[in-house]
Amino acid sequence: MTEESGLKDLIVCHTRISSISDDQLSYAGYNISVLMDNRASFEEVIYLLWNLHLPTQIELKHFKARLRANYAISDAVEQCILIQSRKHLHPMSVLRSTVSLLGVYNVHAEENSIEATYEQSIQLMAKMPTIIAAFARLRMGLSPIEPREDLSFAANFLYMLNGEEAADLEVEALNRALILHADHELNASTFAARVCASTLADIYSCVTTAIGTLKGPLHGGANERVFDMLKEIKELGDAQSYLQDKLDSQEKIMGFGHRVYKTQDPREKYLRFMAKELTVGTENEIWYKLSRDVEDYMKNAKGLIPNVDFYSATVYHVLGIDSSIFTLIFAMSRVSGWIAHIQEQQKNNRLIRPRSQYIGQSDLEYIPLERR
Amino acid sequence: MTEESGLKDLIVCHTRISSISDDQLSYAGYNISVLMDNRASFEEVIYLLWNLHLPTQIELKHFKARLRANYAISDAVEQCILIQSRKHLHPMSVLRSTVSLLGVYNVHAEENSIEATYEQSIQLMAKMPTIIAAFARLRMGLSPIEPREDLSFAANFLYMLNGEEAADLEVEALNRALILHADHELNASTFAARVCASTLADIYSCVTTAIGTLKGPLHGGANERVFDMLKEIKELGDAQSYLQDKLDSQEKIMGFGHRVYKTQDPREKYLRFMAKELTVGTENEIWYKLSRDVEDYMKNAKGLIPNVDFYSATVYHVLGIDSSIFTLIFAMSRVSGWIAHIQEQQKNNRLIRPRSQYIGQSDLEYIPLERR
Repeated sequence: MTEESGLKDLIVCHTRISSISDDQLSYAGYNISVLMDNRASFEEVIYLLWNLHLPTQIELKHFKARLRANYAISDAVEQCILIQSRKHLHPMSVLRSTVSLLGVYNVHAEENSIEATYEQSIQLMAKMPTIIAAFARLRMGLSPIEPREDLSFAANFLYMLNGEEAADLEVEALNRALILHADHELNASTFAARVCASTLADIYSCVTTAIGTLKGPLHGGANERVFDMLKEIKELGDAQSYLQDKLDSQEKIMGFGHRVYKTQDPREKYLRFMAKELTVGTENEIWYKLSRDVEDYMKNAKGLIPNVDFYSATVYHVLGIDSSIFTLIFAMSRVSGWIAHIQEQQKNNRLIRPRSQYIGQSDLEYIPLERR
Repeated sequence: MTEESGLKDLIVCHTRISSISDDQLSYAGYNISVLMDNRASFEEVIYLLWNLHLPTQIELKHFKARLRANYAISDAVEQCILIQSRKHLHPMSVLRSTVSLLGVYNVHAEENSIEATYEQSIQLMAKMPTIIAAFARLRMGLSPIEPREDLSFAANFLYMLNGEEAADLEVEALNRALILHADHELNASTFAARVCASTLADIYSCVTTAIGTLKGPLHGGANERVFDMLKEIKELGDAQSYLQDKLDSQEKIMGFGHRVYKTQDPREKYLRFMAKELTVGTENEIWYKLSRDVEDYMKNAKGLIPNVDFYSATVYHVLGIDSSIFTLIFAMSRVSGWIAHIQEQQKNNRLIRPRSQYIGQSDLEYIPLERR
């Protein structure tokens, strides 16, 4: 293994959380198509990832209540978001700092029994939407909106973001998008979180690590750039010539291809369907139509099919989410998977400490500074 | 490879930065004994790790000037440290948040050319001592002290920490300790930083990741616990019965043994020597004597020899560093190595994205909630 390989296809741990096999994605044994077809809630899926079984009615009721009771953030954390809300600051950097600060202020962060970690998991999971909605509003010069404990995870986020209750179709679309992004085996951010967890670092350190890693353009941010592309194409009025130009100059078209999936990204079709359902007959239909144009062109020109990021751009835009915070929505979902992996690492831990191979010069003699 | 292995002995990348071989540690081809014997400065070693050759006189002069010009932190960052300076907050969590916030406020953080990364490296490296000294003073209720651009990295830190210029012997002791902790191949925090860097995340994300990972008790924090032990032994007055009790109850004695070194930790003897030199004939000699008692007992009882953490506890205490921030001193040194590895990863990058093996149940059928 060398750095050139990027550890591609190397199995580095066992997991019971998710699997990618034959271009299918499953969470704890449930194919995501089963979760979609049965209209599972995101809360059920979080519970599934953390407990490796679906909750009973009582378990789910209790779990939701614990989440909702922890939606609110302290004034100190809101103040911290406020001072980072100027427009030119990078949203993922702000999320990274804010989650880190949440850890500073959690006096129980150093407790690392299984029960303590589970309690911290709930608190962190519950506060992610509140942090992100507050940030999104503050940087637009609007006041944050208090969370509503009577609303589901998805509904509450849209309420805090937009200041009004979202339509059922919108809530369901976000709920589904959150499920589809919840976990994805050992992607780079999850792997980094597990390396961090293997030192028995607290959960906030691990999630801060994951957010910082997701921030990298080779990992997160693709759907933001998809939407930037759609805007450019809309301006230009012609997908074909836009794409031809990009491909001619060897530029990458975002939202296509995947390191692990070969024939399809199993999450994509649900996002495509939601993009259609949410936009048909509305002023937003243009985004769906342009997306279809791009998809058709890429299929014919390059034989490439879209990945999860491609239609999520349109879905998020329709939900009132600014493209600059699309990656924060990814983090708001994926934190459920990160936490599941952190918990799994802690339960059967050994420090992750590989080796490197030294390929430089050896046994050099020190030449005194005055002779250099 | 499974999680039980912790990737032990698995080579995951090539490097030109440091090597551990035959229980010897080298930086870019220079054995640390060569750097110690020739009284290299920490600034020279930072330059060496980042450029893979020792600086000429002119290069070093220019490098030092760039570091010194960046010692100062902004009022916003100092304010951020102040609000995290209450005594019960975890120092490593505060450092994690503060470095993350430094990244939020650096408007050039997203530039990732080699030159831009090098400039960010200097800025971050230069500000670490200022952040740590300000934090140490604020949590003791004292005002931070402005950095002094006429002082070396080590001398300036001790000045900002203690409010007066340190003696030459003290400066040299810190200088040596910083060199000895600067890099250590693919330890967990460095590996996590490289995973983060492989997504092309900015340097602040990578270093925040490394700090969070170093925070874990299986990685950082050993010398803090060594000093706690020495304090307990001093109170008790008898190393032998203290250690016998601990060993009888299967407790780990901190500061002994290492995953990678088999016969010796090559860094340890320099710290032992400094601990002696700094304490002999002073009121602090007790710490050195107790350390020797513990070392002798552990050698006879368990055949174990001390590692780098063991005598660094006494050295840092004598320098006026409170044991609660020992791991921050580790970070202040190791950030030089983290950055070297981040730069190396960026220069020849491929996304680090390994796989996991799924060992849970498969193809489960969804039972509707109302029947659970």
